[in-house]
Amino acid sequence: MIIGVIGGNSVDNQTYELAYQLGKAIAKEGWVIVCGGLRGVMEAVSKGAFENGGLTVGILPGNNKNTANPWIKIPIPTGIGVARNYIIVYTADIIVAINGRYGTLNEITAAFNAGKKVIGLNTWEMNKLNIDNNLFIPVSSVEEVIKKIKEIE
Amino acid sequence: MIIGVIGGNSVDNQTYELAYQLGKAIAKEGWVIVCGGLRGVMEAVSKGAFENGGLTVGILPGNNKNTANPWIKIPIPTGIGVARNYIIVYTADIIVAINGRYGTLNEITAAFNAGKKVIGLNTWEMNKLNIDNNLFIPVSSVEEVIKKIKEIE
Amino acid sequence: MIIGVIGGNSVDNQTYELAYQLGKAIAKEGWVIVCGGLRGVMEAVSKGAFENGGLTVGILPGNNKNTANPWIKIPIPTGIGVARNYIIVYTADIIVAINGRYGTLNEITAAFNAGKKVIGLNTWEMNKLNIDNNLFIPVSSVEEVIKKIKEIE
Amino acid sequence: MIIGVIGGNSVDNQTYELAYQLGKAIAKEGWVIVCGGLRGVMEAVSKGAFENGGLTVGILPGNNKNTANPWIKIPIPTGIGVARNYIIVYTADIIVAINGRYGTLNEITAAFNAGKKVIGLNTWEMNKLNIDNNLFIPVSSVEEVIKKIKEIE
Repeated sequence: MIIGVIGGNSVDNQTYELAYQLGKAIAKEGWVIVCGGLRGVMEAVSKGAFENGGLTVGILPGNNKNTANPWIKIPIPTGIGVARNYIIVYTADIIVAINGRYGTLNEITAAFNAGKKVIGLNTWEMNKLNIDNNLFIPVSSVEEVIKKIKEIE
Repeated sequence: MIIGVIGGNSVDNQTYELAYQLGKAIAKEGWVIVCGGLRGVMEAVSKGAFENGGLTVGILPGNNKNTANPWIKIPIPTGIGVARNYIIVYTADIIVAINGRYGTLNEITAAFNAGKKVIGLNTWEMNKLNIDNNLFIPVSSVEEVIKKIKEIE
Repeated sequence: MIIGVIGGNSVDNQTYELAYQLGKAIAKEGWVIVCGGLRGVMEAVSKGAFENGGLTVGILPGNNKNTANPWIKIPIPTGIGVARNYIIVYTADIIVAINGRYGTLNEITAAFNAGKKVIGLNTWEMNKLNIDNNLFIPVSSVEEVIKKIKEIE
Repeated sequence: MIIGVIGGNSVDNQTYELAYQLGKAIAKEGWVIVCGGLRGVMEAVSKGAFENGGLTVGILPGNNKNTANPWIKIPIPTGIGVARNYIIVYTADIIVAINGRYGTLNEITAAFNAGKKVIGLNTWEMNKLNIDNNLFIPVSSVEEVIKKIKEIE
């Protein structure tokens, strides 16, 4: 089971903590995390997983693995810029979106376009658009994220 | 001036006609069209432009130029699949979205992520989300599309 | 007919002049040029074509069309870095390589991998490797390039 | 330490066995393998590593992880076709090429272009070209591959 986690590259402390707790919870389930490998939500979720024995894969926009945050175990430098968003979506079995601005919005819609479900935590309110019911699942806590993933699995 | 036109690959007759008229109007202004090079809105807008002396560039997902519709003058086979959406956005000065489903939604958000404005004609109601005011411009006719492009230019 | 022209980004005056003359000759045949859109051979061949009425397409590694040389009529910013080499190969019907180092070597082999023929002018001596006879065609002048393209066409 | 292994998608039994032994040897050193994730050399090296406790990452050309061979632990579907060759090169610290035709040749040159060293085992004789001395290292056995990697490290 590979969980894609997406979200802002620059976030407030509360969001960072939320993403950290998500990483921890995913690691405890024995699931792998794939993310964009950079800062903010990507860093927090990687740190949370890494410090709890989880495996973290970072799909980087640049071509140098040194741009990954220190909690990425397997950095994948792509050199294709934001087009790497699709690689995160293809690699993940299910996506969790936390917070974020246009990059996250773009990644959520890439998931829809690839037919992958997105669990949303304090992120874009995609249900305001005419989205298929089962593609976007808004939740309000880390516990609920894990519960939803198990239901979908 | 290069206008990106995005929209569904399979559309009803009314949408096809609308996209055809848009292609015609863009060609008459002397602007270049860049699109995804396939069917539906992409075909209609290319045909409308081509038949009125316009230059049409098709950024194709596959690696073979024979997949382009017959009204693409310059086919660019990318071989990178839907990740080619970003190339359309980077190539265009401004984007017009007509109709469309998740592929179009993804391309609209790619434009936002790249800081490019999107003029929307019978497409996703992006103003229901928390988008910057100047990024999404809903209009209701081809004439209004051309007027808005001239205002932005 | 779309001719891909590849070669070094930084070249001596003699190579620049050779590429300029090639661009001029291609434009006079009415063929379109596709290249990497940057400096050196790419700039010279674009300038030679542009100043003689030719159409020039530049497949750029970055995501901003302002990085194109001034003689590119249609800049295509890809944002995918050197992976854009494959787009040049897919877009071209035949490739001409002039001079160049590892980037050019990589592009020549991308052409082989896509089954496209490469005409070589003062470039890597690919015939020293075990290449199919008809894939690499070494020549020694611009006139010979044009003659070979017409034979292959 | 991440070792990139490249080579033909369809190989004879002897080459398959050689790649299998390489995978086994790399796993015994505790190094990670990154490869193209498909058949032939990619499958053999993954199997050799997997069966000896190694971690295997497959950078796939398509967008579906089910195309990976069964010995890939972390499949990364890219959806960008052969342009994914560059991702293998960027991800690896050093490349080992076994056998192969034009796809492998293209990947070897992608490594040169990215400044990465290539150890060659029964593959293209790149030293016939004017390559920097330290970029291509021909060897004749799996043991020698491991020895060279340790020297370079």
